[in-house]
Amino acid sequence: MAPVVVGLDVGGTKVLGRVVDLGAPTVAVVEQRMATPVGPEALVGGIVGLVADLTERATALGSRSPVAVGVGIPGLVGRDGVVRLAPHLPGVTDLDVGGALSAALDLPVAVDNDANCAGLAEVRIGVATGLDDVAVVTLGTGIGAGFVVAGRLLRGARGFAGEAGHLQVERDGLPCPCGKRGCWERYASGSGLALLAREVARDGGAPGLCGLPGAPEAISGEAVVALARTGDPDALAVLDRFAWWVGVGLAGLIDLLDPEVVVIGGGVIEAGDLVLDPVRRHVAPLVLGRGHRPLPGIRAASLGSAAGAIGAALLAGESAL
Amino acid sequence: MAPVVVGLDVGGTKVLGRVVDLGAPTVAVVEQRMATPVGPEALVGGIVGLVADLTERATALGSRSPVAVGVGIPGLVGRDGVVRLAPHLPGVTDLDVGGALSAALDLPVAVDNDANCAGLAEVRIGVATGLDDVAVVTLGTGIGAGFVVAGRLLRGARGFAGEAGHLQVERDGLPCPCGKRGCWERYASGSGLALLAREVARDGGAPGLCGLPGAPEAISGEAVVALARTGDPDALAVLDRFAWWVGVGLAGLIDLLDPEVVVIGGGVIEAGDLVLDPVRRHVAPLVLGRGHRPLPGIRAASLGSAAGAIGAALLAGESAL
Repeated sequence: MAPVVVGLDVGGTKVLGRVVDLGAPTVAVVEQRMATPVGPEALVGGIVGLVADLTERATALGSRSPVAVGVGIPGLVGRDGVVRLAPHLPGVTDLDVGGALSAALDLPVAVDNDANCAGLAEVRIGVATGLDDVAVVTLGTGIGAGFVVAGRLLRGARGFAGEAGHLQVERDGLPCPCGKRGCWERYASGSGLALLAREVARDGGAPGLCGLPGAPEAISGEAVVALARTGDPDALAVLDRFAWWVGVGLAGLIDLLDPEVVVIGGGVIEAGDLVLDPVRRHVAPLVLGRGHRPLPGIRAASLGSAAGAIGAALLAGESAL
Repeated sequence: MAPVVVGLDVGGTKVLGRVVDLGAPTVAVVEQRMATPVGPEALVGGIVGLVADLTERATALGSRSPVAVGVGIPGLVGRDGVVRLAPHLPGVTDLDVGGALSAALDLPVAVDNDANCAGLAEVRIGVATGLDDVAVVTLGTGIGAGFVVAGRLLRGARGFAGEAGHLQVERDGLPCPCGKRGCWERYASGSGLALLAREVARDGGAPGLCGLPGAPEAISGEAVVALARTGDPDALAVLDRFAWWVGVGLAGLIDLLDPEVVVIGGGVIEAGDLVLDPVRRHVAPLVLGRGHRPLPGIRAASLGSAAGAIGAALLAGESAL
């Protein structure tokens, strides 16, 4: 019998927890959300409570008790389970999340970066199942990435590998909250798409974009995608520019890692080929050796918003047990 | 007894071949250079002849005959031994170097990118010996890179991994022979150092740089380094700018791969800490999570100009036998 585990995806605004039988990891035995508690002690305490609630509900339904916990955190997570830095979790710095949770829960706990968890999920049971070399890139508020190399998550010497959002793609470019300028995620994340659209709307002459809610300063990436779906030429032009920026970074990852498949997730990609087709078109000429090598397939992520929690559950099975 | 093998480093202008006892791989039993033959058939034929010469000389000295051959090629090399593209080897495109050599020599042959070979050498017997996660970056005419992840060369799905030179670091930047603009190697290679110095010399007002041989249009990177050694402030300023560009790309590699150590090779690095110190200073604030994580050490490569041939010999031992 496959073990029953808890997978938790900690986001900047909410935490999603799932009890999962690893024999059928896409199915939630029970699932529960909570607002992300603010501050390190509240966060650890909140997660302990959530695991207790999930366990109680699951066992009440006849499930076995979970034997391990996996946690995905949006930040730099060491191999030791210590969260070094998590910009979207105020106060969570150099916090031993793994140690604190395993002590409080008396269960083995595995902690990793949330994008690593999502990457693991796509490779184990998602759109890249069975592939050995895969890059999973999530275009959300920022850019998250998880790389699988020779069948294993690329963790690096200390566990910090897989941060793709802050590659410099433009000298003296847009300022980034990280303190640098010209980081890839300023252009190629969901937020980046919104910034590109606002720039066009600010210049006027793009009636569709100028008519969006909150234009120009509060245009959202989702609104641009929705407008592009109607065939609006300015929205399509913004999407094309965005796709070029996505392609710039993906080409770099392909040069470096030579994955068999690149999986792209995040809200913007819910638009499917409307976004993916221009990305594919722009990536091809940017990869080194174009024309002399097969290019990796570029696929939409398949596990949606539960990918992180599912991946955290898989991580618990692979790393904590 | 350790096997005797041949390691070959094919460069744009010369080929270095070594017969090596893998029990003492830094020692050449015999060593021989030849001008790089131009064209695919001449190249394969020339290598076959070089291996025959090396074998004859080695056995005349009492060595056992080599039982395998490793070849490092400056280009995109597939896992199948096919060289897809080698910009510095005219006409060498989609050429099955591994197949042609093993048929002609009747020996097992392993072929890989030259920077991968150098990386393997530094990790197996050089400055990064015994480390599992290492990035080796060679700053020469272009930028070569070899990554070791969890103790193994990162090859990627098809063998093309480890190309770091064409990451975009500036939008609409300097044109690159690859056809793109703003590639990292336009700024951070030995050639890039020369370009930065020429730009300053062209503007005048830098007497030391303007007095270099061939100034401004033919200043070499080596000449800038030599001038900086004398304390020339303009040369030091150019070196500092160069070090920033090196740091931009290294920070990206550190974000992505989290190596324990970064090894830097190439002619420019023969200047040692004069170059490495400003690189270390610039890298630190460019890495994500600075201040909350240990930074990888940045070390000079230790195997010098034979690193590629030594690495090719090691590759023969690890992959062809």
